[in-house]
Order: sequence, then structure tokens, then C-alpha cells
Amino acid sequence: MSEKPVINYGLEGIYVDESSISKVDGQNGRLWYRGYSIESLASQSNFEEVSYLLLNGRLPSKQEYEEYTKKLRERRGLPKEVIDVIRVMAPVSHPMDVMRTATSMLVMYDSDPNNRDLEATKDKIITLLAKTPTIAAATGRFREEKKYIPPDISLGHSENFLYMLSGKKPNEFEGKLIDLMFILHAEHSTNASTFSVLVTASTLADVYAAITAGIGTLKGPLHGGADEAALNMMNAIGNPDNTEKYIEEALEGKQRIMGFGHRVYKTYDPRAKLVRNYLEESLTKEPSDEVRRLLQIALRAEKLMVDKLGATKGIWPNVDFFAGPLYRVLGIDSHLFTPIFVASRTSGWGSHIVEYWHNNKLVRPVEWYVGSLDTPYVPMDMR
Amino acid sequence: MSEKPVINYGLEGIYVDESSISKVDGQNGRLWYRGYSIESLASQSNFEEVSYLLLNGRLPSKQEYEEYTKKLRERRGLPKEVIDVIRVMAPVSHPMDVMRTATSMLVMYDSDPNNRDLEATKDKIITLLAKTPTIAAATGRFREEKKYIPPDISLGHSENFLYMLSGKKPNEFEGKLIDLMFILHAEHSTNASTFSVLVTASTLADVYAAITAGIGTLKGPLHGGADEAALNMMNAIGNPDNTEKYIEEALEGKQRIMGFGHRVYKTYDPRAKLVRNYLEESLTKEPSDEVRRLLQIALRAEKLMVDKLGATKGIWPNVDFFAGPLYRVLGIDSHLFTPIFVASRTSGWGSHIVEYWHNNKLVRPVEWYVGSLDTPYVPMDMR
Repeated sequence: MSEKPVINYGLEGIYVDESSISKVDGQNGRLWYRGYSIESLASQSNFEEVSYLLLNGRLPSKQEYEEYTKKLRERRGLPKEVIDVIRVMAPVSHPMDVMRTATSMLVMYDSDPNNRDLEATKDKIITLLAKTPTIAAATGRFREEKKYIPPDISLGHSENFLYMLSGKKPNEFEGKLIDLMFILHAEHSTNASTFSVLVTASTLADVYAAITAGIGTLKGPLHGGADEAALNMMNAIGNPDNTEKYIEEALEGKQRIMGFGHRVYKTYDPRAKLVRNYLEESLTKEPSDEVRRLLQIALRAEKLMVDKLGATKGIWPNVDFFAGPLYRVLGIDSHLFTPIFVASRTSGWGSHIVEYWHNNKLVRPVEWYVGSLDTPYVPMDMR
Repeated sequence: MSEKPVINYGLEGIYVDESSISKVDGQNGRLWYRGYSIESLASQSNFEEVSYLLLNGRLPSKQEYEEYTKKLRERRGLPKEVIDVIRVMAPVSHPMDVMRTATSMLVMYDSDPNNRDLEATKDKIITLLAKTPTIAAATGRFREEKKYIPPDISLGHSENFLYMLSGKKPNEFEGKLIDLMFILHAEHSTNASTFSVLVTASTLADVYAAITAGIGTLKGPLHGGADEAALNMMNAIGNPDNTEKYIEEALEGKQRIMGFGHRVYKTYDPRAKLVRNYLEESLTKEPSDEVRRLLQIALRAEKLMVDKLGATKGIWPNVDFFAGPLYRVLGIDSHLFTPIFVASRTSGWGSHIVEYWHNNKLVRPVEWYVGSLDTPYVPMDMR
């Protein structure tokens, strides 16, 4: 071929697979996991059940649920060598670097990591679902020169994460709040990190290799990390009464307001709506001055942005905009936002591995060569 | 859209970028790095210069070469904590798992890992080029309960790798042989691992995250590892006189002969030709009985396969077929073949990161949803 072909930069609009895991309707602001609306799952289910649903394609019976959550609880602990690596890295590295390295290392405790049978694959994913919150919490502890807190088997999945991070058992509202965040981040179709997991898995590399690739991909500021950036903006605003002035000046200067606009959603992100409700409820729970200010800034910024850019430009708040203030309600440091995303998204990543391996095809695109050919080699002393 | 779109499984034939790094001509069995034929580089250059060429797009001046190789030499050592992780993992994990974890961990010694300026990016890649052979060698040592051998700054890049692995300084022929393998594996367009590196890098994640993803992807048996599988077959043949019978029976049983056939090359892989020449020369160098048998098996298997399937079916030997016996000439264990591939390919991966970031575009394909919608949520005790 000598004529330049169509080049699909960013693979925009390129279909890479069929999937029954999740459906994002960007026009109408809808999201379904395995056919269940995100609203029904957020109000009636919990993360354990949602991750089971994603992985297995249907809701569990009571017995299946108990067996599944028993595994999740029993596998939360980390081997000593992994804790040692987290302890060494956490004070100097971004928590996402720690998460990637520790997850990669977990392969050594699997006596048969290359077993790709369906049940073996699901079992490895359960192991990673159980341990990634512990890695995130341990990283948070060591960053602040605090001691590692072992998991509490009596607590639910996301509650236990908060406990390992703070040493305090969360109240019911806090438990609901963190669980909501785990549910909302669990899956979102073939975005960059999920696709990256599939590219790695397509060579029949093991589950640890694939999830490790996804973690590295999620670290990028164009992907994960928008919630951290949005929170930074709210902190820069500082006082709620500065909100409108700050936003209007930023818009006049053509600055991008983090947490608004989305490659798929062209209306209100349904996850953002769910988080917003909890933000409003949090304001009634006597938050700290810092958190009250953040919540007020978030709500005022949102109102202004929706009025200015929502219906006219199709730029609406996405889940990242409200996530930061909500994590601050729980006292979570902004550096841990993306590691929490990992702990949750491991369920979506794992479900995609299972689905892709059912009919695996090696991912091997092509690139269009624009260089020279047969350049004569000139020895160094003649250059 | 309600009609099923075209689904590009495996992205076969999908162009994802323009590139001037390498050109593979599968019809005519040609390969160029930055316009230089692989034959001219294999006979006149060395790995240090080839990696400079890939990364910078042109051959170095004498001064540039000296500055570049000085950095490569000085950075070969590994920090104590990384050696500790290799020591812990090597006895129980595949060397590719160790390579992935140790490379991921190296981020902690970079004081500014997210700096994506051109020179900073190249500098990080040089660091990884310098250290990945040391990780591979240390893993090989610890697997056999031997001591870590620190790098020897007086030796060339690939010679030093052999030295760190065996404790013996290679002779000239051995040095040429390992350097050839480093040159031939340095780059091969957007295959799965290189594409995986680009997907991760496209989120503007750092160099360590991207290369770590590539290592995980290369581990898969559909990608790296074919040389190991081909060697296993030769070992199963055992005696050169069994070669023809074994191959013919395998072909009758429709078994795939590893190291033959390639998604791109429809004729003799030009790299395989270069390795084959060294195999024949190795036979004249009084190899051990094991190696002599392997070399004879490889050459007899190749002759039979080319006669039977070459011109008629377009199935020809690829570089993986001859790589195993050649590594055995050097006394290298088969588990280290793919880690050596990593140490070499880091140059191609790094060059692709630099090229892609010049005009970055987030990789975000789509998938076609085939599940249900708005399934009513049924509480657990009513299921």
C-alpha cells in the first residue's frame, strides 16, 4: 500500500469488542452494570454484591453471596514482604506507584498464576479485590508515618478500608458514603485503563500482569486524577464567596475547569447526581469548617457552571467533580483518590478479562511508516 | 446507533499512528530501524548505538556516543531495596514477574517521575535501559541461589549482562552473539507490548508505568515466550536423528511448530537469517554436547519445515526459532529469554513513548453493548 490510510488516533469510535458488562448512554446520562441501572445499585446494593454481579453477570443467591464475601474478607491481609515494599515506597512515591508495584508483586503468592480456567481467573480477581484496598490503606498510613492496621474481618468491604486507613470504625453514614464511591467507580466500559488491561490480557499474560498494566494507565492525569485536580481548584478558591469570581475568571482565561465535561457524557453524569445528593446530606451532618467550605464551594461552582455551560455547551459535571469533597468528608487525603479508584475498578477490569478471554484475540494494530528506507550506514569516524 | 457496527477484533489492520521508528516489510522479509536495514546494523553497529538511533532518530556523533554510553554504564547498578525484592521473588516467581515488579519499583528513585519534557523522558529511558539487564541477571543469579554480581563498568552493554549473569567475561564471539540478540529484539513496530506501552503513555502516565505495562504484556505466551517454547520442542526431540520423525508427526497431528509463521512476515524473517548464520558459526566453536545437539536439531528442523511449508504455505522460521539454541550457546537459562527481550525492547518502547507524546492522543476505543437494560433489582431474599 502506498497511499496514506485512515489513521484512527486514540481509536476514537473504533469498536474493539462486544460486551455485556456495562452500557454508558452519554446522550441521556444513563449507566447500567450488567443491565441494572446505577441508581438501583447505588440505593439497594453494596460493593460486594456489585462486584459479584460484574464478575459473574448476575446477582448472587444468598449462599453465593456468603461464600463470595467470605473469600473477600479472608484474603484482605498482605504478606510481610509486600508490606515491606509499601513501607519503603510510600514515603517517597505517589500512592499509585506503590499500588502498581505491590499489586505486581502479589503474583508471587499465587502457586499457579498462569491458570486461565474460568474459575481460577475469577479466584485471582477476588484475591486482588480483597487486597487492593489494603494496599491503598497501608500506603496512606505509611505516608503519614503511622503504623499498618490489619484488616477487621467483622467489617464490610469498603467500611473496612476506612477502618484500616483511620483506625476508627465508620458510622453508618460514612459506611454508605465510601461504599457508594466503590460502587460508582467499579466499571465504565473500555476507557483507557480497561482497554490497557485487555491489551495485556490478549497475549494471555496473567491476571496480575493485566491489572498492573491497568493501574499504570489509570495513573495518567488524562484519566484518573481528575478528582484530585478538581479538589485542588476548590482549595484554591478557599472561601465559598470567591467561587463565582474564580470560576468566571478561569472561564474568561479559557482555563479548563476540572471535573466538567466528559468524552462520553454530553449531559449530567448520572454518577455525579448520586454523589451530589450525598454532598448535600453531608452538609447537615456538622462537618468540619474545611469540609463545609469545600461542600459549599462545590455546590456553588456546580450551579454556576450548569447555568453557564450546561444546556448551551453540553459541558456538565462528571463524577470527579464531587468525588473530592466527598472523600474529604471521610477525611481521605487527595493522594489516595486514584488508589481507591483502583480498588473499585479492579472489579470492572477483572470482569473484562473474563469476558475477553472467552473469545481471545491478540491485539496487534499497525502504524503507518513515514521514515526513510535503506539509509547507508556511515561508520562513526566518518560522520 | 442500533445496527451492529464493524468490530475490529485484535485491531487487525487498524492504523493507530504514524511512525518513523521502524518499518517491517512482511512480504519481502525486510526490517529497518530508523531507515537503516537490520543487516547493516547487525554487522556494523552495536546495541548502544542502535538504542541511541532508535531513541533519537539518527546515529550519534563520537561525542554523543561517549556521553550516552557513559550514562548507560554508570546507571547499571540497582538500589539495595530493589535487589531485596528480586531476591525475595526470584526463587518463586517467573523472571518476567520479577522484571515487571522491579521495574515498577524503580520509579521511587526518580525525583521527578512525571516530568515529560523531551530530554527528561529520554533520560528516564536511558536509566531503564541501563538497569533492566541488571534486573534480568540478578534474577538469574538468585534463581540458582547464587550471589548478585555488580555490573562491570569496563564492559560493553550486552557483554556486561553476560558477565553479571555468569561471573565470567565473555570472549569476543560470545560478546558479538549476545549483542546481536540485543540488536535484533530492540524494536518491531506496534506489536502488542509496544501498543500496550502507548495506551498507558496516552493518559500521560509516566515512563515507568508505561514500560511496566509493556513488560506485563510481553509475558503472554502469544507474544514473548515463543523462543522458550521452540527450545522446549528441540529438547523434546532430544537426538538430532529424531528431528524429521518428530516434526512430521507433529504436522500430521496438526500441532503448531513454535518459532514458525508470523502475523507480519510471510517469508523468511530477516532476523532469523542473521541468527542462523551465528548458529552455523557456533557449531565450529566446539560447543558442549547439549548445545551441539540443539544446533543440529534446529538446523535440521528448519530445513524440513522450509522444504515442506515455506514456499507452499508461507510459513517460515521467525527469530524465535533460532534464539533459544543461540542463548544456550551462551549458557543462558530459558526462563531468562523473555527478560532479555525486555532489556532490549525497552529501547523500542521508549522510542515509541517519545514519538507518541510529541502529538499525544488518549486511547479510548468503544465496545458494542450486547446485554440487557433496566433489569429490575430484586432484593436478595426474593431471588
